[in-house]
Parts: sequence; C-alpha cells; structure tokens
Amino acid sequence: MLSSGSCSFQDHILGLFSNSAEAEANYAAARQRLLAALANWRNQTANSLSPDPDSSSPTNLLDYFEQLERTVIRNSADLASPLCMGHMSGIYPRFMALIGELILSLNQNLVKREASPVLTQVELETLAALHRLIYNQTSGFYLRHVQDHASTLGLVTSGGTLGNLTALWIARNLSFMPRHDFPGIEAAGMTRALEHYGYESAVIVGSRLMHYSMEKAAALLGLGTQNVLLLPVDRDNRLETSALQDCISDCATHRKRIIAVLGIAGTTECGSIDPLQTIAEIARAGNIFFHVDAAWGGPLLFSQQHRRLLSGIEQADSVVLDGHKQMYLPVAASALLLRDPTAARAIEKHSHYMLQEGSGDLGRRSLEGSRNGAALFFHAALRLIGEQGYGFLMEENLRKSRIMAELVRMRPEFELLSESQTNILLYRGLPLALRGRRMSPFSSEEHAVINAFNERLQKQQSQAGRTFVSRTTIALGNASPAAPLVALRAVITNPLLQQHHMQSVLEDQVSIMAELENQADRETSGCFAVHPVR
Amino acid sequence: MLSSGSCSFQDHILGLFSNSAEAEANYAAARQRLLAALANWRNQTANSLSPDPDSSSPTNLLDYFEQLERTVIRNSADLASPLCMGHMSGIYPRFMALIGELILSLNQNLVKREASPVLTQVELETLAALHRLIYNQTSGFYLRHVQDHASTLGLVTSGGTLGNLTALWIARNLSFMPRHDFPGIEAAGMTRALEHYGYESAVIVGSRLMHYSMEKAAALLGLGTQNVLLLPVDRDNRLETSALQDCISDCATHRKRIIAVLGIAGTTECGSIDPLQTIAEIARAGNIFFHVDAAWGGPLLFSQQHRRLLSGIEQADSVVLDGHKQMYLPVAASALLLRDPTAARAIEKHSHYMLQEGSGDLGRRSLEGSRNGAALFFHAALRLIGEQGYGFLMEENLRKSRIMAELVRMRPEFELLSESQTNILLYRGLPLALRGRRMSPFSSEEHAVINAFNERLQKQQSQAGRTFVSRTTIALGNASPAAPLVALRAVITNPLLQQHHMQSVLEDQVSIMAELENQADRETSGCFAVHPVR
Repeated sequence: MLSSGSCSFQDHILGLFSNSAEAEANYAAARQRLLAALANWRNQTANSLSPDPDSSSPTNLLDYFEQLERTVIRNSADLASPLCMGHMSGIYPRFMALIGELILSLNQNLVKREASPVLTQVELETLAALHRLIYNQTSGFYLRHVQDHASTLGLVTSGGTLGNLTALWIARNLSFMPRHDFPGIEAAGMTRALEHYGYESAVIVGSRLMHYSMEKAAALLGLGTQNVLLLPVDRDNRLETSALQDCISDCATHRKRIIAVLGIAGTTECGSIDPLQTIAEIARAGNIFFHVDAAWGGPLLFSQQHRRLLSGIEQADSVVLDGHKQMYLPVAASALLLRDPTAARAIEKHSHYMLQEGSGDLGRRSLEGSRNGAALFFHAALRLIGEQGYGFLMEENLRKSRIMAELVRMRPEFELLSESQTNILLYRGLPLALRGRRMSPFSSEEHAVINAFNERLQKQQSQAGRTFVSRTTIALGNASPAAPLVALRAVITNPLLQQHHMQSVLEDQVSIMAELENQADRETSGCFAVHPVR
Repeated sequence: MLSSGSCSFQDHILGLFSNSAEAEANYAAARQRLLAALANWRNQTANSLSPDPDSSSPTNLLDYFEQLERTVIRNSADLASPLCMGHMSGIYPRFMALIGELILSLNQNLVKREASPVLTQVELETLAALHRLIYNQTSGFYLRHVQDHASTLGLVTSGGTLGNLTALWIARNLSFMPRHDFPGIEAAGMTRALEHYGYESAVIVGSRLMHYSMEKAAALLGLGTQNVLLLPVDRDNRLETSALQDCISDCATHRKRIIAVLGIAGTTECGSIDPLQTIAEIARAGNIFFHVDAAWGGPLLFSQQHRRLLSGIEQADSVVLDGHKQMYLPVAASALLLRDPTAARAIEKHSHYMLQEGSGDLGRRSLEGSRNGAALFFHAALRLIGEQGYGFLMEENLRKSRIMAELVRMRPEFELLSESQTNILLYRGLPLALRGRRMSPFSSEEHAVINAFNERLQKQQSQAGRTFVSRTTIALGNASPAAPLVALRAVITNPLLQQHHMQSVLEDQVSIMAELENQADRETSGCFAVHPVR
C-alpha cells in the first residue's frame, strides 16, 4: 500500500521513523558527534544561525548536527559551571539524563490513563511523597488518596509559574463557589461572582517581594494586576505581618474579597523566607486560602537542621515546589501540592473523547493538556538522592552561602547588601572613590553612581562570559522603595561549587571594575566619580 | 572546603553530579540496561510500583533501573505502534531522541537570554519559519521582526492548551485596552473592564466541536465557561456560518463583547475543518479577533495538494499548531503564531531580577516562566523532514484515511459514522441483531443499545492491549445534541501504518464483539438484544 507513488525521497522520510540497520548506524554516528561536541562545549566566537531556515528540503542528519555543534552547542551558556553563580537552575545529577531519555522514549501523555497507564500512577505516588514532605499525613491517608480518582494530592506542572497559577485558580474558584442559583465563578465569570457575593473586587495579598508570576496569575484570572496588594517587608525582607492584618481589615471594610494570602519560602530576589507560621494563623483566623510559593526554598524541608525555617508551611492550603531549582531536576518541572485532596475539583473539566467522569485521567484537573512524564524526574530524585541526600545538599548550600558572604565582606571592593537567611546573596561593587566608607551612609547621588557602576559591571561580566552573577534592582528591607539599589545576585546552589570558585568570581569582578574605572578615566565625563558631571 | 564533615555518603551524593571515571562507567551500564529494556518493551503483566516510595536513603542506580524496567517500561502504552490508532501523538522520527538529549544536556532556560543566548535566537527563527508557513510575509518582514525585541511573531508553549490560552489572553486584553483613565483589563480586571467599556459580559464564539481547552481558557480568564457560546455545525461537522452571523448580531444587541471568534482547523473529535475563509470575513467585518486552533490540522499547510482545506487561515490573528501531533515531535511542544508582531505586548510583564524592558528576554511575553529549548525540536523537524517531507506525510495520512473508511464500510460488523475531511474517522460496531440495517434508521432505543455495546467494546479492546482506538461521544452534524452517539475514533497519523495494520485492528474488534455477544448470551439480561430488559 505504501509503495504507491513511493520514491527515494519518500523512503527517506519514512526511514526517519524506522529502526532499520542503516538508520541505526546513521543515528549512532550522529549521537557520537553530539556527545563529542557536548564534551568539548566551550564558549567560543558566536556563529549565528541562518536567519531564515530553509526548510524546503531535508538536510542530512550529520550535516545538521555539524551545524548545531558550530552554533548551538558552542555558544550556549554553561549553566552547570560552578563559576556561573547567578541562575537558580543549571546543574543536575547525571542520572537525570537517563531519566530524560526514558521519558522521551516512552513518550507517554499524562493527560489520560490510556496514554500513560504506569506513569499516571508514578505521578500520583510521587506527588504523595512530596505531599508527605510538607503535610506529613499518615500512610493510610496516602494509600487512600492515591487510589481514589476523586482525590488530587497535587499536580506536576511545566514550571512554577503554572503551579502558582493553578493554585490561585483553585483559590479563586473556592472563593466564589456555586451557591443557590449562582453556578460559581468558573461558569459565570468574575463579574457575576463579585455581584452575587457582594464584593467590589477580588485580591491577592502578600509581600512586595513576591514572584512576578503572581502578577501574571492575577492578570490571567481576571482580577487585574492592580488587585495584587503588595505589602512591606521587614529589614530581613520578610513580610510585615502587622501590615497583613491591617490589609485584611481594610479589605473587609472596602468589600474586597481576598482569594489568597501568599507566603514566600525563599524570595527570588534574595532568598528570604516569610514568617509562615504567623501568616498561617492570620489566614486561618480570616478563613482565607493560604498559598506558599516554595519554588526556591521548599527543599529546605529535607534538612533536619533547617526545616524549622519553613515552620507553618504545613498549614498552607497549597504549596509550589520547583524541581528544576533546588531539587536539581532539568528545566522545567514543578509540583503543586494541595492540603485538601478535594480542592482541585473546583477546576475540574471533562471532554467527550477522554477525561470522562470517574476516569482517573489526570487531565481532568490540570491546567495543561498533553504533558510528558516529567514526574519520573521527581521519582528518580527521591530514590537516588533521597531525603537524606537533599538534606545534605541544602545544608551545604547554606554553609557555603555564609562563606561567600564572608568573602564579600572581607574585600573593600564590595559591599554586602543582604545576608540571606538562605542561599541567595545580594552585594555590589564600589567605585574606587567610594570604598572604605562603610560607617557613613551614601547620599542618594552616590547611590545613583554606584547603581550605574554595578549595571555596567554585571553587563560586562556577562558579556565576557568567564564568570556570572545576575543583577536585580531592589529596595531592601524597610527602605523606601523610592530608592532602589542595583545589586549583584549570587545564587549558591551548585553542589560542585567550592571556595576557590567564589574567589574566582569576585576576582573577575574586581578586574572588570578596574577596567571600568580606566574607561571612565579616559572619558571626560568621569561617570564613576563621586559627583558625576551632568 | 567541601571536605568538612564529608563521608562516603556525602561523596556519593556529590558523585551524582560529577563526571568521574567511576560515575561514567556506572552511567554507561545503566544506559545499556535502559536501551535493552526499551528494545524489549512489551506489554506484560503489570507490576505495580511500591505505593509509598521510600526516599529516606539513596538507592543504587542499577537497582533503580531494574525496577523501572519491571514496572514503568514493560507496562507503558506503546503509542508508536501502528496498531495503536486512537491517539493524536505517539511516534516521532528517531532523530528527535538526539535533539531531546541535546536540549536536556544544554539545559538552557528560555525565560531569559542570559540563560539561553543561542536557543532564544533558535526559537525566534523557528517561529519565523512557522509564521511564514501560515502568513507568508516577505523575507524582509522576517529579518526585521526576528531582530526587533519589540516584536513577537509567536511563542513556543508546552502544549496546545497553553497556546490557546495565551491567544485568548491576548485577545481579551486587546478587547479592553487602556483608554482615557482606564488602565486596561490586564491591570484593572474583568469587572472594571466591562464597566468601562459598557458591556454585560465578554464571550468566546465558535463551533460546539471546539477543544475543551477553550472552556478552560474562558474559565481561567474570568469570562466563565457559560460565556463560551457553542454554535451548531453542518452535516460535515463544520461551523454553521449563518449561526455565527446571528450570534454576532445577538451579542451586539445584548452588550456582549466577543473577545474572539474561533475557527477550528481539525476538530479533535472528527478532524473536520471549519470554513475559515468565511469566518475570517465575518470576523473582519465585525472587527473581532479571529483565532484558529490548528493544533491538529495545521501541518496540512505543508501539502500543496491539501493546503486549500485551510484557506483563510492566513487572515487569522493567531494560530496554534501542535508539534507533538502531526509535526511528529515528542509530547508536548506547541507553537502560537501571531499575525501582528505587536499583539503580544498586551500581555507583557517585567521583573527586577530579569526581563528588564528592552532585554529581548522571551519571558517578558510568555505565559510560562522557566522553559527548556523545545524550539529545537521544531527547528530540527523543519530541517530534517522539511516542508516537502511534511507534505508527503500529510498526503499519505489522508490517503490512508480513505482506505480505512473503505475497510470499515466493507464490513457488515461496522457502521461508518463520519467520513472525515482529514484523517480522524468515527465508526462503531453493531451488535449481531442490528447488522445489515443500513437503509432503515435506528430507533433511539436501538441507538442506546449500540452505545452501550461500543462502550464495552472499546474498554475491552483497551484492556486487552493488542490494538487500540479511542472512544468519544458525539452528536454528529446537525443531529440533535440530545441524542449523542458513542463512537470509535481512529486517528490515522502513524507514518508506518499500513493496510494490514488497519485490518488487524478491525479483526481484533470483530473478535471482541463476538466475545461480548457470547457474554450477553450467557447473561439472562441479554444486554445487547434489540429490546433490552429493564
């Protein structure tokens, strides 16, 4: 049948899908080339891809891989290097590559059981293990809810943004459930929900250091970004709980429905952890949904030594953990955990061709539709690293973070801006003329000079590509947000990171600062002098 | 430094991240085991995973893989088999495994350029190629917009649901843009937007065969699922455009703002394609955003012979294509294409630590945050399969679909319910007593009997696991939706599928039907008799 109209081109195309001996040999050769190229992966002179990929006829496999080697592989960012200290993800244990190969080979689709009979079960069991990490229910609880199609202990999502969005979607729906003749916000929409329940608006409340995905979620969910109420933080960058109490009173007065109070277990900017216990008590007193964004800090729960930092998280209605951050999974795999196994029914959907009621298809209660078996990354990690292994890794990260803080503090070229509770450090370089001034505060003019200096420093460092830290703009602690500082942001999370790497990063920055000063000297403007000529 | 407090356990954990000779050998052995297990992959007796993964201490790599072999690998669904004809994804060309290995190895994060300097560019160029497939602008257009950080030709998303959601998010925001003192719906939320613009509600309009992700999007975006207006279809399961015109008039009368009119290029249920040209004209006349869900049928554009089926798609404001369906990518990679490169500014977000304005970071205008380099799957496919290769594959799918329809029609055991315009076929098995009745219509009682029969047939077939088609419930054409039929759904998309596979699937079903009749005979109820005893 397939021979009708076939020719060598058509055989070639069909050959791409087959396991013939010839295809195998070609494949093996391409894989060898790929592995060799990855082994030699270095940042070299960029070769841009052709801007307009000519897709009119197939290209030879080896030719294509040769092109990828010259372009993609050589010029990608080496995020797994210990000298690359600015990202929250990058390195993963080597076994993850095998798990990735397995997920790809099986190519199951977690949207329905028929297309993922085992991996659906793996996801349910893995979520139960993560749920236990946070909520520590009985074995009976987990046995029951893993088997019960009506229950949802959590969801694996393609990243923390989707996890946070799903949590707030559930929270929104639980705030405006069906009642009397009102069919619920999911069916009737935001406007009728507010009208029926008698509110002016629906809001999300949390620290002003919340991740920008909350703003995105508020926009998507029809609340509007203006209805994300950003509260001040204390000098340790933790939510001011008195402000939270005031805000809740204020919302009641003004008929604003708080759909969720947010706690942050590891802010993206500086790693600070909100007082979750107190927030939990306030939320419970107000009968408000409590969501914890533990994308960064969640794995501290594995450490017997540090898990007290997250006390109160077990009272959260929902928690997001990022696998690709401190669980060392590939980008991007996250998990949303739900304290109440019935909560996700508030977002349940059905379709005719699948997801029939009672089917146990995971797609009934997920934001995403088709999804691969990323749960297996979590499963393997929990087995092969294990709770004890993660505990050790988290303890090391915090220990090394203190060392890095000390290294910064010891050098006059730098100023430590925030000694993190966890393992994200903010600091900045100081222009020559402003060093050794730690006892007398900088003027706002001086801050502006230092800001410009650090922006150039980080850009130059990033371009040079020898070492890396990221850059943020932050009003620290209870400082006025009107005077934000440009900060260098070091993320201490690579298990292979050692003290000499930290020193190399700082020395690289010192040498770039010297270059910047020289450039400034050569320019008449002297832009890093104390009083810039304007 | 790392030696402080180290012991063999800690060395083991750190060893998971390193490339030592010992780790390499262990890794190579595990990979061999994995490949052998995949090669022997068969559906065998299920071995359930332990319900409660003991994660307190690390497990040996080979032991873990041995467990995966017994559980996950042996019992996963073989979606790439030509006998598995019910899913929309499954098989992919072998080179995709190499691309997957590369994406995983590089582990770039597409949310920002600093973490994906080359793959950001690859994504932009790949989206330009897909944009050209639909919109066919000049080379100058693509050169300009690929380079311009203010432009967005499209987005790669983790699946079509997120693509559709993003399109409708953009459409919603464009319907309620900032104006005078109103800051726009993104900032102010749904209620204030309706109030300011003077509407009662915001709605999405399209055929009742639209994918369930539209309902999900309407729920998420604050419209409410009741505000998805489902219009009737003609006898070929294509949107009734007269109903669309009536609906638009009705919405104007009742102050309903249509944020988007939907066209479907390949319904999930039966592969039908809406009259996109006519819908485009109606949408343009009404100044309404026109979104086309081409998740299934989009690749027909590659075929010179069939691309006319999608005429009018080039007038869509946005189009979703699923990579993991008929572009033969692994699950789940999709692309959203935007006709107007400025449209996505309506959802732009910033953050301090990245996504600074003008940065060119893709995360500024994506629903997702951290994402991997899935764009490389599309890039490789366009090079190694190419437009001509895809054209051939699509033509084969439609040709084989006609053969399958003929095979069903020839056998008295079956009734063909829908001869697809494309390559999804609906048919059903007939109980013995109801065969050979094609000229006289079935009573609704008889339909109910046939429905129950087909539900059991498909469940039994799925459980037996030798062959697979999916099952749906559908009111076909302009039939009353009050009398939906249970249908078997064959998806003809595997390039290795041949006529003998189709015959095997049908023969398997015939033998299962005989078993069901025997069972029914043994039961006094005779549940597949014409007049079921109640």
